[in-house]
Amino acid sequence: MNTTTLSSLKNHQVRLAARPQGLPGPECWQFTEEPVAEPADGGVLVKVLALSLDPAMRGWMNEGKSYIAPVGIGEVMRAGGVGVVLASKHPGFAVGDHVAGGPGVQEYWAVAADQVKRSGLAKIDLRLGKLSQWLNVLGMPGMTGYFGLMDVGQPKAGETLVVSGAAGAVGQTVGQLAKIKGCRVVGIAGGPDKCDWVVRELGFDACIDYKAGPQSVREGLKQHGPAGVDIYFDNVGGDILDTVLARINRKARIVICGAISQYNNTTPVQGPKNYLSLLVNRARMEGIVVFDYADRYAVAVAELAGYLQDGRMKSREDIVTGGVAAFPGTLPLLFNGGNFGKLVLQVAEA
Amino acid sequence: MNTTTLSSLKNHQVRLAARPQGLPGPECWQFTEEPVAEPADGGVLVKVLALSLDPAMRGWMNEGKSYIAPVGIGEVMRAGGVGVVLASKHPGFAVGDHVAGGPGVQEYWAVAADQVKRSGLAKIDLRLGKLSQWLNVLGMPGMTGYFGLMDVGQPKAGETLVVSGAAGAVGQTVGQLAKIKGCRVVGIAGGPDKCDWVVRELGFDACIDYKAGPQSVREGLKQHGPAGVDIYFDNVGGDILDTVLARINRKARIVICGAISQYNNTTPVQGPKNYLSLLVNRARMEGIVVFDYADRYAVAVAELAGYLQDGRMKSREDIVTGGVAAFPGTLPLLFNGGNFGKLVLQVAEA
Repeated sequence: MNTTTLSSLKNHQVRLAARPQGLPGPECWQFTEEPVAEPADGGVLVKVLALSLDPAMRGWMNEGKSYIAPVGIGEVMRAGGVGVVLASKHPGFAVGDHVAGGPGVQEYWAVAADQVKRSGLAKIDLRLGKLSQWLNVLGMPGMTGYFGLMDVGQPKAGETLVVSGAAGAVGQTVGQLAKIKGCRVVGIAGGPDKCDWVVRELGFDACIDYKAGPQSVREGLKQHGPAGVDIYFDNVGGDILDTVLARINRKARIVICGAISQYNNTTPVQGPKNYLSLLVNRARMEGIVVFDYADRYAVAVAELAGYLQDGRMKSREDIVTGGVAAFPGTLPLLFNGGNFGKLVLQVAEA
Repeated sequence: MNTTTLSSLKNHQVRLAARPQGLPGPECWQFTEEPVAEPADGGVLVKVLALSLDPAMRGWMNEGKSYIAPVGIGEVMRAGGVGVVLASKHPGFAVGDHVAGGPGVQEYWAVAADQVKRSGLAKIDLRLGKLSQWLNVLGMPGMTGYFGLMDVGQPKAGETLVVSGAAGAVGQTVGQLAKIKGCRVVGIAGGPDKCDWVVRELGFDACIDYKAGPQSVREGLKQHGPAGVDIYFDNVGGDILDTVLARINRKARIVICGAISQYNNTTPVQGPKNYLSLLVNRARMEGIVVFDYADRYAVAVAELAGYLQDGRMKSREDIVTGGVAAFPGTLPLLFNGGNFGKLVLQVAEA
């Protein structure tokens, strides 16, 4: 695409306008439009095709210290995504290459020469997985699930693993991978459709519908995890974490991946009142941040892509259309359970 | 001592009469008196000299699953202790041997042949430490501190360790051992006397008086642990745990040894609302139960006794007299901070 054509393009962006109190509403966002320019020497211009919508985004919107700097007011909202190279003056990228990285919520991503390495821009191979799978099992959620399970959870064949958010992006990878590693796998998800899918399509041993009643998780764990819980991969926090803590075995591992039930609190986070179960059971609760494993992503992608190829792993993405303009209305789906599978925002036709 | 003399002795005992609501009051206890008898073949009769009073006792008084069975109503209250062999028909024990084990709150401990091994009855060497030290640094608290620090905390030279209950039995061992291992050590204790002792006598780098004001721990950690906290050895739980969680470093280890602030709650335990700091910091919170390390006690005793000998480790015991009758009134000292050092109940003159 030549410079004349590029200059006719407009880059529509979604910027953080205000920090949310509770669930992020429309007041949090600002729409901007910028010209698109030819990359300078060493730079790459990417047309964004799809964005990853993640629970972690809610944390990035808060002020204050975390594992990553908050998104600044007025900045393009941070987001992972996939796209196609539209113009390149970098020897490692050619026009037409499919790439993944962190474009943010915008239509075009200009990566300057000195940002290419830092940005995480990387070519992706669509023979290993569909574009949307590169935002799911082969992307950040898959990496999170893989390293959270393998490095922190340390599954052993015959152990019982419980994963919350079982039908979500991280949960689906964790549960299937744990099955492959020989665990008994019990999911926790919201509603019968998600639970059915997790068991019938993904092959989990059981799935507990936490919306089925106040005792559903407690009773479900007794029924489906009679030998107790050896690994709990927690994406939700809150009451469910407490209920699982009451059922852990000796030397259990609790992987703290997220706490989606708490992210929109306007009151303090609900701490696990059963945390002394860690003492009684000599158990461990440990946090995971996927970026720590960047130097091993390739190994995980290769393994997971193999399972996709041989059919032992499936994935489901919930792809919302409407482009970046649909971002503000789509993000809250993550917090009310409105998505079914990895939530993806399609920005342009592939 | 011959049979005629033994039969003139009375064994005074303290039994659990009722499960406490909150702080254990006099209604929880029942006093009994039993005759003392010559041991049968393979058995040992121990005269109890001193008992260990431990925060864990409060948990043993509750009904329900824990790391150890609860004390049954009507049973002699469980307690660790030291004593001297009064009569023996076991080849491994001779009259006059000093021993440690779990006699319970009573004056004489009859260990039947089939109980000798299970009871943990073991000879102790008073050249390695005083009788009271065998209930402290060379006993369960010392073992708890040693394995909690070394195996779970995994200290590295130059790291900052914070320990709550710093002047208590476990805390004093943990802090001094961490100093020996090259850590910067900050204690948390109640009141200026304990804090002064921990710094001046035990050589901690600093000690924070949590009673000095609502912000004392927060401000103290900033001042005395400016590089953040790498290891937190928690004996107290509650607000202090939350305050420390807000100051942990990447890959920090939180050793959950106890939660004395919560043991007498009549409301649910206060869960750590800052537990997501584990995620942000890829940190770990892990429980320790000393009994898991029984096969390595001898190694720890040898190391700790060496430090006692060469003066690098000191200990302090708060020895209460009055015999088993004083037990009900002494136990609550643990929960109101009334003891200074390892709380020991003297049962008989050594």
